[in-house]
Amino acid sequence: MTNKPCETLQALLYEQIPLYRALQFSVSRWENHQISLHIPLEPNINHMHSAFGGSLYCGAVLAGWSWLYLRLKEMGLAEENMHIMIHGGTIEYPHPVLGEAVAVCSAPEEQSWSKFITIFKRRKKARLTLTSSIHYDGKLAVYFTGQFVVHVNPA
Amino acid sequence: MTNKPCETLQALLYEQIPLYRALQFSVSRWENHQISLHIPLEPNINHMHSAFGGSLYCGAVLAGWSWLYLRLKEMGLAEENMHIMIHGGTIEYPHPVLGEAVAVCSAPEEQSWSKFITIFKRRKKARLTLTSSIHYDGKLAVYFTGQFVVHVNPA
Repeated sequence: MTNKPCETLQALLYEQIPLYRALQFSVSRWENHQISLHIPLEPNINHMHSAFGGSLYCGAVLAGWSWLYLRLKEMGLAEENMHIMIHGGTIEYPHPVLGEAVAVCSAPEEQSWSKFITIFKRRKKARLTLTSSIHYDGKLAVYFTGQFVVHVNPA
Repeated sequence: MTNKPCETLQALLYEQIPLYRALQFSVSRWENHQISLHIPLEPNINHMHSAFGGSLYCGAVLAGWSWLYLRLKEMGLAEENMHIMIHGGTIEYPHPVLGEAVAVCSAPEEQSWSKFITIFKRRKKARLTLTSSIHYDGKLAVYFTGQFVVHVNPA
């Protein structure tokens, strides 16, 4: 782990999602509004000696979730009773993952981000589409597009 | 577990996918070409006290995988070196899962199944689209469409 936001996020994921322990992912970098999660092979292996498609989905969706959480926290908008949920997604597996991999999520286009922030500030609920990807041995192994919903519960 | 195919499948999933233990799913029924997997909440819970979207994806994809495996086995086509892989999918979460849930996968349309079988017998490799769903408290909670690829490795 390279910095404080990574440590905070890692602790949060451990605390909030019991399955995260079994997946044994770790938050490896948060830099220039890009998040990277490390995905080890062994706990996520399948009968083909490659990573199980379900584990890779978890990596892709948690990269998006983490990106949104860290970005909102950075902007001072991550309130105590704020929740980020996945509402739907599409995944493709162009290449098998045969070893350690990295899930990455970067900022969406500035226009959709601005729109999301404007609506979120006004309504305390907004929806954002994020793309994340998983890379193994220099190859694009997973491509994911997810619709995330963020809302703040009334206190 | 209701019958022998369920027991065989449960043992296979335990053996071949280490994450399956953490998910704590169980194969609950194989009847009339429909597979049901039981999804407990506790090991799959998240910070919202609902099931984690990644776990639900695993349930949906494993229901499809299991359907295809059992159906091919029933037809005597599940060779030792046959592999079923998920190639891509789309998932929607119309309703949160707040307790025990069931993932279900039924037969695809007869026409696409026949086409799949014809191609698989001829080329030892074929692709099939399956839909599965997860139900909680009488509600449709997850809807999944996945593209599966089956191939037999040369001995």
